[in-house]
Amino acid sequence: MKKNILAISFFTLCLKLCIAQSILTESYNLMPWPQDISENTAKFIINSDVTISLSSDDSDRVRNAAVIFLRRLSNRTGVFLNEGFPLKERKGNIQIIYKTHAPLNIKTDESYTLTVNDSLVQINANTDIGALRGLQTLLQLITNSETEYYFPGVNITDSPRFVWRGLMIDVSRHFHPVHVIKRNLDAMASVKMNVFHWHLTDDQGFRIESKVYPKLQSKASDGLFYTQEQIKEVVAYANLLGIRVIPEIDVPGHASAILSAYPELGSLPDYNYSIERFAGVFHPTLDPTNELTYEFLENLFTEITPLFPDDYFHIGGDENEGKHWTENKAIEQFKTEHNLKTNHDLQTYFNIRLEKTLNKLGKKLMGWDEIMTPGMPTSAVIHSWRGENEGLPNGGSLIKAAKSGYQTVLSNGFYIDRMLSVDHHYSIEPIGDIALTPEERERVLGGEATMWSELVTPLTIDSRIWPRTAAIAERFWSAKEIRDLEHMQKRLAVISYQLEEQGITHIKNRAVILRSMTNNQDISALQELSNICEPLKVYSRNKDGIEYKTFSPFNLFADACIVDAKDALSFNKAVIAFQKEDTKSAQQAVLHFLKQWQVNYSNFSKLTLNPKISALEPLSKHLSKTSGLLLKCFEAQKVSTHDLDDLNTSLEVLKQEFMDTEVVIVAPLEILITYCKTNFQTR
Amino acid sequence: MKKNILAISFFTLCLKLCIAQSILTESYNLMPWPQDISENTAKFIINSDVTISLSSDDSDRVRNAAVIFLRRLSNRTGVFLNEGFPLKERKGNIQIIYKTHAPLNIKTDESYTLTVNDSLVQINANTDIGALRGLQTLLQLITNSETEYYFPGVNITDSPRFVWRGLMIDVSRHFHPVHVIKRNLDAMASVKMNVFHWHLTDDQGFRIESKVYPKLQSKASDGLFYTQEQIKEVVAYANLLGIRVIPEIDVPGHASAILSAYPELGSLPDYNYSIERFAGVFHPTLDPTNELTYEFLENLFTEITPLFPDDYFHIGGDENEGKHWTENKAIEQFKTEHNLKTNHDLQTYFNIRLEKTLNKLGKKLMGWDEIMTPGMPTSAVIHSWRGENEGLPNGGSLIKAAKSGYQTVLSNGFYIDRMLSVDHHYSIEPIGDIALTPEERERVLGGEATMWSELVTPLTIDSRIWPRTAAIAERFWSAKEIRDLEHMQKRLAVISYQLEEQGITHIKNRAVILRSMTNNQDISALQELSNICEPLKVYSRNKDGIEYKTFSPFNLFADACIVDAKDALSFNKAVIAFQKEDTKSAQQAVLHFLKQWQVNYSNFSKLTLNPKISALEPLSKHLSKTSGLLLKCFEAQKVSTHDLDDLNTSLEVLKQEFMDTEVVIVAPLEILITYCKTNFQTR
Repeated sequence: MKKNILAISFFTLCLKLCIAQSILTESYNLMPWPQDISENTAKFIINSDVTISLSSDDSDRVRNAAVIFLRRLSNRTGVFLNEGFPLKERKGNIQIIYKTHAPLNIKTDESYTLTVNDSLVQINANTDIGALRGLQTLLQLITNSETEYYFPGVNITDSPRFVWRGLMIDVSRHFHPVHVIKRNLDAMASVKMNVFHWHLTDDQGFRIESKVYPKLQSKASDGLFYTQEQIKEVVAYANLLGIRVIPEIDVPGHASAILSAYPELGSLPDYNYSIERFAGVFHPTLDPTNELTYEFLENLFTEITPLFPDDYFHIGGDENEGKHWTENKAIEQFKTEHNLKTNHDLQTYFNIRLEKTLNKLGKKLMGWDEIMTPGMPTSAVIHSWRGENEGLPNGGSLIKAAKSGYQTVLSNGFYIDRMLSVDHHYSIEPIGDIALTPEERERVLGGEATMWSELVTPLTIDSRIWPRTAAIAERFWSAKEIRDLEHMQKRLAVISYQLEEQGITHIKNRAVILRSMTNNQDISALQELSNICEPLKVYSRNKDGIEYKTFSPFNLFADACIVDAKDALSFNKAVIAFQKEDTKSAQQAVLHFLKQWQVNYSNFSKLTLNPKISALEPLSKHLSKTSGLLLKCFEAQKVSTHDLDDLNTSLEVLKQEFMDTEVVIVAPLEILITYCKTNFQTR
Repeated sequence: MKKNILAISFFTLCLKLCIAQSILTESYNLMPWPQDISENTAKFIINSDVTISLSSDDSDRVRNAAVIFLRRLSNRTGVFLNEGFPLKERKGNIQIIYKTHAPLNIKTDESYTLTVNDSLVQINANTDIGALRGLQTLLQLITNSETEYYFPGVNITDSPRFVWRGLMIDVSRHFHPVHVIKRNLDAMASVKMNVFHWHLTDDQGFRIESKVYPKLQSKASDGLFYTQEQIKEVVAYANLLGIRVIPEIDVPGHASAILSAYPELGSLPDYNYSIERFAGVFHPTLDPTNELTYEFLENLFTEITPLFPDDYFHIGGDENEGKHWTENKAIEQFKTEHNLKTNHDLQTYFNIRLEKTLNKLGKKLMGWDEIMTPGMPTSAVIHSWRGENEGLPNGGSLIKAAKSGYQTVLSNGFYIDRMLSVDHHYSIEPIGDIALTPEERERVLGGEATMWSELVTPLTIDSRIWPRTAAIAERFWSAKEIRDLEHMQKRLAVISYQLEEQGITHIKNRAVILRSMTNNQDISALQELSNICEPLKVYSRNKDGIEYKTFSPFNLFADACIVDAKDALSFNKAVIAFQKEDTKSAQQAVLHFLKQWQVNYSNFSKLTLNPKISALEPLSKHLSKTSGLLLKCFEAQKVSTHDLDDLNTSLEVLKQEFMDTEVVIVAPLEILITYCKTNFQTR
């Protein structure tokens, strides 16, 4: 009986959610979508009399957020506010009410309610962090008519599904200065993310100043590292935004940089360690049988843990097969003596010692899922990066970890550096249909998008993180049932330009690259190409041809291209619609693109060529040719064998890679060619 | 006789320079133009084998510059270099040879020679600073054909005309974070500027952390200030680029912020001091009769001078009429007792005491030209900001200062916040035809462009500084005779996009503003308008209508517009050419623009309007109308009275201000209307 009520409630909930979403998403561009939203008929006009007041002045976070809110409100609306700061002596017409100044951890209450009436906006929250989340929602509610800006009347009750909603940035493969991190923290906050995982060390560089081991920055960073003051600055900045910072010092593998500074800690005594310039998995590894290694790590951790107040500390631990361990007889002997059968056992021995050190320093050890070996205590936190795609059972290492008693965080499926579509990432359901006990469910803390930086620099990193990560943020915050792709895409388009308004460079820097490529000629022809090409996916950019080094150029055509290429997406949709229903208007929508592309080559040909753009010439040429031929067929309602041959020849060209990108309109073009063949063919 | 030889040499020199420039500027986009350049037939191909070596490893500056050089070379050319760092064990095919690691001061030798042969590039300099300057020239020499990039064969001998080539940035009216300063330092270095004058305090905010007087940041900065660590970081960064940093603490006027924190130092005991939100000149002033004032300044200067290693220290001293002094009887009495007749005498008394304090700290006092009062010792440095336009005699305060025995620096004529054309600033000749003795000439140190920030934020500051300041940098570095406007403009267009390549946001952020204004609609119609409108000049933006506060929005239409609006400049030129010579092709060049503008309104009308763009509607409408009518006249070769009336009506509309901008094609449109009237009129 109870079961039945539950089932009905669940059905009602689903229905309610689905209806609510379908109606409301038409009006509101909220992301992440709140747990509950209803409309009222009110309208709060945004004019120069807007004021804001806080229930108390004890939270730097809320004060800071309120000032930023006023600046962004003013910039978005163009309204000249009379009061640029929260009121102190009287109540504002936007009131922020919160009870406590919360410590930042996985228990932090982030819930809030938001009500908009004609003359009053109220945000109510148990904690200051909840108030911050509510302010971001309010900013996303700004709406306008031709004559005014306003907040529409709504009642929102909201809280996150997962407590850990993170973004990892790798600053080793390419260094990203403080301001790049800060602008990404701003963006994270705007979509309610709350964990910044800072991958600070890897083979390609050690990026944090150590006063105890100064060679780490002087020999292992190429001068590109954060001072301890800068680390503090970033951590404080993140804290103001309600974002926790988890540092990662990746050991025992991924250690080329560390070992270039302190080779005495390496697993092969005579190895010539140096900072790695290429991308890949390398063998230099700390020696887990050397007491100096533990002394070094204990000293280093003792020095840097105070910079990071968070409870969690990430030790990496990934991708080490221990090749150098096997090559070193002394290490092999140590294994025998300690009854450690495999290199994995040896790494577990290493991890357990590290965990003790970190516990002593008040930290919980976190590591990539390789650390989940039989002997590893469940006090460790498993960062799941391998899943079904790596041949693991349903749920991947995440579910295994949760069921084995570990707290766990999911990144499998959220590797944004693989250059996969936002639809792909958004559709990943962390838990899926797997039955978990409440305890197991609680151990699934949430997830992290991972921005590995082999192929990104400060110029391009934003366009690799955003806007896709906003949709991932929704996956981590919103209800499981919020998963309609079209609604997400519609809202994401708005969130995307608002991210630019906030300082994210994902849109504007594309034109910078194209201007640079052309020596400042008219970039419209290249822009058109960049809207139908996507960077090679799943690490294949670095596979053939020239291999990229850390200091190779990353302002090339592929760097101006993005995942979810705009015109390609629209064209694909238009062709699919035409395929479904062969109407005049559906056909027009398709031909519209073909007409645009037909003239690309004549525009491209006006450019004075140089070595950075010449390789795009066949792309432009055959795009125009294919488009022109298709247009001719549709117009004449006939197609000759000769035309079909030409079409197929051009299409073969478009199937090639162009400057590390792929043309992502080949499939719909093929559909159109088949259509012509089927419907129009003549001899 | 000797005179004659000199005269002939001078004539020859002029001739040589003029010829050299006219031929060479066609090929090279160097800015500032070097003192001497000649061509050889060589060509140094840029491929992956390019390497760089340094004559010694004792200069951080050269090592840093060489790495940056390699990154920029690689980004500009797309070449994948094998070696990403200077060679240590062998010589490179680019060799940098310098003798000493120089201290940074007004005596620093910045000269260098640069020779490019087929297989070798050599930069020779007496100092590491000279080597940096040479590397910037080499970067500007990169040339390409369709198939390759290369350095053309040249021999350059170069050194600056003035030792002080500065940019002042006001970070008080609007705060500009460290990364904004750093990117501008990079840009300065690329055009060989060597002084960053940091206007750190003013009525609107005190921007540097004091540990001795912490209320300066806690009460007088709105939380927007540099920590001492950040100051050190910027100074070190500038030093690496060969740029001196001169701090300015503006006293005794412009002191609202200081007095909001320490009102006890103010000239009116019961005045309610607060951070100023508006732009303008205000009365709050330190009390020069109060010993506490001197104690405060001595402690403050003692605390902060160690952060700024430069010899010079700027105390402002401008725009104080001493209104509050006159209102305070005790101060009036002090004047009487000390035989100080005027408020200027009182300020001199104050300045002289400050100078002693600064001298004790090893600093030379520098101040705006108001400090040049009869009693002021000539050990002070006069920063000339008032000139003939303020009613001063020929040469303004600069020449007066030099002739009176003061070292002096010119900013009159280089107030880039006045939004005047690059031609205007470039044409300012600091010394002109005024005869100076060698000693007087030596006291004219150089000049500074001044970026006052009442109307700029980090989003827009770059577009107010650049590219115009690159031309000003040339004025300060290159020979007086280098002054051809067209050549400058041609080179500046190239330098401008290269500044963007380097990280300056002056081009890309304009589109950001337009996207934000339109809620991410197609911005092409607005872009067209922004290319014929310029922000109101000489501070008139803040004159009528809403007055801007520090927290007002600065992402409006005027902020997307720039000085030297591109299409307006081209159209003006086309109309003038057509006026000179009424040919078919000259007419076509004019009509080309009219055709473009004729359709602006139909594009504009496709936009969903909002309060940020509605006010542009009449601009777009009447631009299209005027263009359409003119096109009709030219086509029909006749114009009716009715057309002329319509033309004049529309032109009157275009003479109005639109959202704080002016339409800068009114004059050429008037010429065309007159032409139609004269040549085509019918009844």
